[in-house]
Amino acid sequence: MGIGQGIFNPSPKTKEEAVEQLVWANRILAHEAIFDAFGHVSVRNPENNSTFFIARALAPEMVTKGDILELDLEGNVLTRTLALPYQERIIHAAIFRTRPDVHSVVHAHPLPVVTLSISEAPFRIVSHPAAIFYEGVPVFDEYDFISENPSGMLIQTKEDGDRVATKLGRSMAMLMWAHGCNVVGTSIPGAIRAVIALRDNAVIQLAAQQYGQVKSLTYDQARAATGTMRGEPDRAWNAWVARVKRSMPVD
Amino acid sequence: MGIGQGIFNPSPKTKEEAVEQLVWANRILAHEAIFDAFGHVSVRNPENNSTFFIARALAPEMVTKGDILELDLEGNVLTRTLALPYQERIIHAAIFRTRPDVHSVVHAHPLPVVTLSISEAPFRIVSHPAAIFYEGVPVFDEYDFISENPSGMLIQTKEDGDRVATKLGRSMAMLMWAHGCNVVGTSIPGAIRAVIALRDNAVIQLAAQQYGQVKSLTYDQARAATGTMRGEPDRAWNAWVARVKRSMPVD
Amino acid sequence: MGIGQGIFNPSPKTKEEAVEQLVWANRILAHEAIFDAFGHVSVRNPENNSTFFIARALAPEMVTKGDILELDLEGNVLTRTLALPYQERIIHAAIFRTRPDVHSVVHAHPLPVVTLSISEAPFRIVSHPAAIFYEGVPVFDEYDFISENPSGMLIQTKEDGDRVATKLGRSMAMLMWAHGCNVVGTSIPGAIRAVIALRDNAVIQLAAQQYGQVKSLTYDQARAATGTMRGEPDRAWNAWVARVKRSMPVD
Amino acid sequence: MGIGQGIFNPSPKTKEEAVEQLVWANRILAHEAIFDAFGHVSVRNPENNSTFFIARALAPEMVTKGDILELDLEGNVLTRTLALPYQERIIHAAIFRTRPDVHSVVHAHPLPVVTLSISEAPFRIVSHPAAIFYEGVPVFDEYDFISENPSGMLIQTKEDGDRVATKLGRSMAMLMWAHGCNVVGTSIPGAIRAVIALRDNAVIQLAAQQYGQVKSLTYDQARAATGTMRGEPDRAWNAWVARVKRSMPVD
Repeated sequence: MGIGQGIFNPSPKTKEEAVEQLVWANRILAHEAIFDAFGHVSVRNPENNSTFFIARALAPEMVTKGDILELDLEGNVLTRTLALPYQERIIHAAIFRTRPDVHSVVHAHPLPVVTLSISEAPFRIVSHPAAIFYEGVPVFDEYDFISENPSGMLIQTKEDGDRVATKLGRSMAMLMWAHGCNVVGTSIPGAIRAVIALRDNAVIQLAAQQYGQVKSLTYDQARAATGTMRGEPDRAWNAWVARVKRSMPVD
Repeated sequence: MGIGQGIFNPSPKTKEEAVEQLVWANRILAHEAIFDAFGHVSVRNPENNSTFFIARALAPEMVTKGDILELDLEGNVLTRTLALPYQERIIHAAIFRTRPDVHSVVHAHPLPVVTLSISEAPFRIVSHPAAIFYEGVPVFDEYDFISENPSGMLIQTKEDGDRVATKLGRSMAMLMWAHGCNVVGTSIPGAIRAVIALRDNAVIQLAAQQYGQVKSLTYDQARAATGTMRGEPDRAWNAWVARVKRSMPVD
Repeated sequence: MGIGQGIFNPSPKTKEEAVEQLVWANRILAHEAIFDAFGHVSVRNPENNSTFFIARALAPEMVTKGDILELDLEGNVLTRTLALPYQERIIHAAIFRTRPDVHSVVHAHPLPVVTLSISEAPFRIVSHPAAIFYEGVPVFDEYDFISENPSGMLIQTKEDGDRVATKLGRSMAMLMWAHGCNVVGTSIPGAIRAVIALRDNAVIQLAAQQYGQVKSLTYDQARAATGTMRGEPDRAWNAWVARVKRSMPVD
Repeated sequence: MGIGQGIFNPSPKTKEEAVEQLVWANRILAHEAIFDAFGHVSVRNPENNSTFFIARALAPEMVTKGDILELDLEGNVLTRTLALPYQERIIHAAIFRTRPDVHSVVHAHPLPVVTLSISEAPFRIVSHPAAIFYEGVPVFDEYDFISENPSGMLIQTKEDGDRVATKLGRSMAMLMWAHGCNVVGTSIPGAIRAVIALRDNAVIQLAAQQYGQVKSLTYDQARAATGTMRGEPDRAWNAWVARVKRSMPVD
């Protein structure tokens, strides 16, 4: 039914392989409660570094292969289609344009992450999987609320996109004030693990500070901790796929 | 089985279309944990502005087309039936009477919303989807606990209903002290998105203030942010329906 | 398979009807997350006020009709069986002995309720359904930790049971320090609604006090609020049963 | 399909019986949300005290009998296989080596437990099932972040393992700073109940201290409370298995 078997693919080499993994990423992120009806995930084209794939404007849990569009790094839709793209594709395009190391981007709105974005608290690393964020997690709040046609809290122009990418810098994640987060990875499974780590770390940080001072990891500790993360991207992937097959069967 | 296919209908034009969408709204709101066994949702009659539809007194997840009643704007049941209506239909009637822009009303009791209603904290907008509440979210607490036959925490008379509608004013939502909320929309999908936004915003507001000061949106920011909300009411609707079909199959 | 159809029965008149409703109550309370693998619910024998029914020592979600035992009001098992009864049957027996108005008792350990039991905070009514607790919710902490054979945190003797029933007084619920709660009703559906109301009220109370002062209901307000609770015990019951049939199908 | 029927076995006497119970433990701990895609559980060989069983590096919910490896008490894999073992098998080996009373070890990362590990708060017993931790729950934080090849937050050498086992002492559980916990039992069902008790107790402790002072159990009270815990290991086990069969059916 246009979603494939979900067999783990450590390194998609063709468009078709990348698209199949992307379809599964949409459903996995919905099942893991990172996405609600909104949010989106993209992957760089393994055959052409200057394009990427992302679904048309659709709830992630509904995405099949036929819903995937190819876009250029300015956010233009290259696929011949009447389908509407996500407005926020600009974020994905801007990050792929400025970060050649990034092969997948997740834009999502988990409540614990929005919570952190509107608080006075700085992001702190308080859990092993979040050690990958040792470069920090900046907060973007440069929205346009006052121009004649304000973009409000959506990123809609190339200039908006550039500001987002500049704020991200070389970090693996950033928050967007009162809105959500952008999380990146060198692969789709990596980006999924990263956004789950960011969300869970936010849950732990909020809870722990209610006890008083929080014993978080320093930059050096977090960086050292990433050295022994063997990754095994298939371990989580196969469980995620099994859960989707059980709980979100395709008609 | 009396619930229809749930195909997205951007603008119901007939009684039958409105009733089918209302049946799905009942099940969706139960599945999204806005309703427990209690709570109710209504829709204005697209063929007659002075009547509306609402289920008989039944748990929302059990509602089928045969359970829908037609009521007038004073809350009288027009459908010939022995079925018992919700006592709180008075709230729906009063709002439809005073707010011609409103085509759907949700009355619900999500715990985070009840929490806010009994606190000292004012409602604050801390998430993008809640920007629609830029006119504010007033709290109703004018219950009758002391007359000879006190209505307690239920709204049962036309006068009670008028007080509720007056408190709502031109807002898109209001809280009811120690009880729940009334949320309105220009359509059923809009009212569903609004009550989810209100609930999620309450979760975020509570959590964020544990960190200290909360950086919420101003009136002007929130109003500007609604300008670029494209809506796409089908995006969430289709996912909600798919979830109900998976998890709440009709016998 | 020994559980019956779960058709709502407003007033069981025979042993068989009471036992069938009790079997469903076990599964409902497990599904509604009031019970984990532990906890128990009982019902007074409608044919004989001096006996009651309760399952043998079994996880509630596994209970079928064949697992129900008849006990007297001292907690002696009258059913001829080798099956082990719950140790805490003493609590049920003591309450049925001293409270003729009570026809069902739930003993459970929901985490928000245990939280309140070990805190400095008094129980406060902060939600409409909890208005039924206007007589207060006392906390029992008279455990025996120091005798030669300490009963620890279990209630095992008739004297222990008497102390529990005395603490309950004429309330509809009581907490047990660091352990859980006993909630009573004039019927099984009433006891289920009461324990859900107690749990949800504890969630709201904890959350709201993080904002500052909590605007809770007074004794008079809560008492007045119960006057207009029409009850409609079938409304929630039918939804609870439908959920069990969907999510906990019997093999 | 290589997982067996899950029939309760109070005391596995053979390798085969131990392995079958271990497979179920993997799935149960995943279903009970103790494990996400990571975490592991082991059991001592009932036929040979100096070896133990644990799955190959696999998400726990995917484990079948063919995935179980036999290891010695230094963490060497004895099973002839190309399969990769868990890096953290060293923790299990070290505990089995120093604690002859222990027959099962769970290593997991529940968020409430990680929260406690990074806080200033000492572990406190605030719930009946957690009374088994009366010997205390120490926190391990002796990670290597600064050697030439830092092990970061993983335990990888025999010396690391010895330090972990020393920290555990004669307790039934320990925390690992910003990482998770190790929980032990005299049997697999006992270790499962213990880790659930530890997680739930952490949820309650965090919540209760938001009210102010927490009335926790003393050492003497907790120790006395364990005396009357009859256990009935089959009661929870049969419910856990039924849940796995319903929600995680094997293909």
